[in-house]
Amino acid sequence: MIQRVTFIGAGNLATQLGKALMKAGIDIVQVYSRTNRSAEALGAILHSPFTNKTEEIDLSSDLVLVALKDDAIGQVLDQVDLRECLIVHTAGSVPAGLLASYSKRYGVFYPLQTFSKIRDVDFSLVPLCLEASSAEILADLKELAAKMSASIYELSSDERKIIHLAAVFACNFVNHFYYLGERLLADNGLDFDLLKPLIKETAARVMAIKPYDAQTGPAKRYDEKIIENHLSLMTGNPELREIYLHMTKSIFQAHKKITE
Amino acid sequence: MIQRVTFIGAGNLATQLGKALMKAGIDIVQVYSRTNRSAEALGAILHSPFTNKTEEIDLSSDLVLVALKDDAIGQVLDQVDLRECLIVHTAGSVPAGLLASYSKRYGVFYPLQTFSKIRDVDFSLVPLCLEASSAEILADLKELAAKMSASIYELSSDERKIIHLAAVFACNFVNHFYYLGERLLADNGLDFDLLKPLIKETAARVMAIKPYDAQTGPAKRYDEKIIENHLSLMTGNPELREIYLHMTKSIFQAHKKITE
Repeated sequence: MIQRVTFIGAGNLATQLGKALMKAGIDIVQVYSRTNRSAEALGAILHSPFTNKTEEIDLSSDLVLVALKDDAIGQVLDQVDLRECLIVHTAGSVPAGLLASYSKRYGVFYPLQTFSKIRDVDFSLVPLCLEASSAEILADLKELAAKMSASIYELSSDERKIIHLAAVFACNFVNHFYYLGERLLADNGLDFDLLKPLIKETAARVMAIKPYDAQTGPAKRYDEKIIENHLSLMTGNPELREIYLHMTKSIFQAHKKITE
Repeated sequence: MIQRVTFIGAGNLATQLGKALMKAGIDIVQVYSRTNRSAEALGAILHSPFTNKTEEIDLSSDLVLVALKDDAIGQVLDQVDLRECLIVHTAGSVPAGLLASYSKRYGVFYPLQTFSKIRDVDFSLVPLCLEASSAEILADLKELAAKMSASIYELSSDERKIIHLAAVFACNFVNHFYYLGERLLADNGLDFDLLKPLIKETAARVMAIKPYDAQTGPAKRYDEKIIENHLSLMTGNPELREIYLHMTKSIFQAHKKITE
């Protein structure tokens, strides 16, 4: 059973995952971060000792949880002798096998969610995507995951990569459209609040209806008059026009293809 | 005071707006649609007489509400003598002035939301964007709007056009990314349910945090390794790659510009 966890990394994901683990009764024995300020900040939140020195990392815990940016994982782990540890990373795009060179006992504990330090997330609804180097470790990770979330998936590294890509579309790209919408309004003295009920409903709708069936608007029916009208509003912004045209064509293609 | 309303149009918007008006105690005196089946269906929902003949449209009401596709507005109204009527349309992109050729008393009643026939919307949260040919009519429309929603905006036709464009980004384009994410998962035997908590949180977050500050993910920091990895997953789909690259560049540009 995993009861004592060492954190390597103190960013947004580490902060939210640490809070959720603490709430689930797990003992966070230490927080390591490359910058002392981050280590201290998360240590304070988790009531844990902290360090920014790799040689001080507490390897006595049941699990070393690595929540670093993808590029930093190797850089940090190269400096630590993890051979006796169970280690997991929390990254969408990094294969589990990367950890094989550090320990025989390894896995992945990937929460599929977007995290910020200041906004707490309800982990009970977060899909936890697990992978492990053995059935025994998988069972331990599942037991740990079940303390936080009812949504647990066992997925391969290849499947996780696809999910991470899909998440970029459904979160990062979506958020950028919120931003572009907000800029359009702000440039014309209009308030982003206007869009909020629409944003909420657009997201709420696909909880119940397939995104394909939920599509509305001029692109779906290729309403040339409206599209021309919209393009004329973006003459000063060729990049935005380009994105608008790509999306409009992609929507039309998707709906033409299937209804034809 | 507007108490009796004639509906011209029976689509998604007409259905949801009709239900909301009925709930607000307004009398829907008649529903007209070009197809008898649509007129009958909405008539049944609103407990109203219906017709598909323009010469039978009931012009005795306090307001003729036109909820037709943009192109159809002129086609239908050309066949009706509306000179004695107060008429409004409900379209984002159509200038109020289009109605001036039919009556001196006209306006716009544009609910900024995405509507489907089957999914009921809480109108109390829907921004109602109003415009009118006179202060008196504006007051009447405001009074009517206030029976349904606490969110009332007086906006010019030019402002409404911008809002409609921003709504295409924040709703139609966003929904298409939900769809593309779902396709990516489905093509790999994975369930769209995986993405739902992320979609919810991404929308919920911008209710409290500015979209710019809410941005996360590889594009923001131009993480080349992840981006290359993602592109390699889309080699079979050049269109999707193109959209991915455009979005990634746009996100990076937006964040570079301001943080530099």
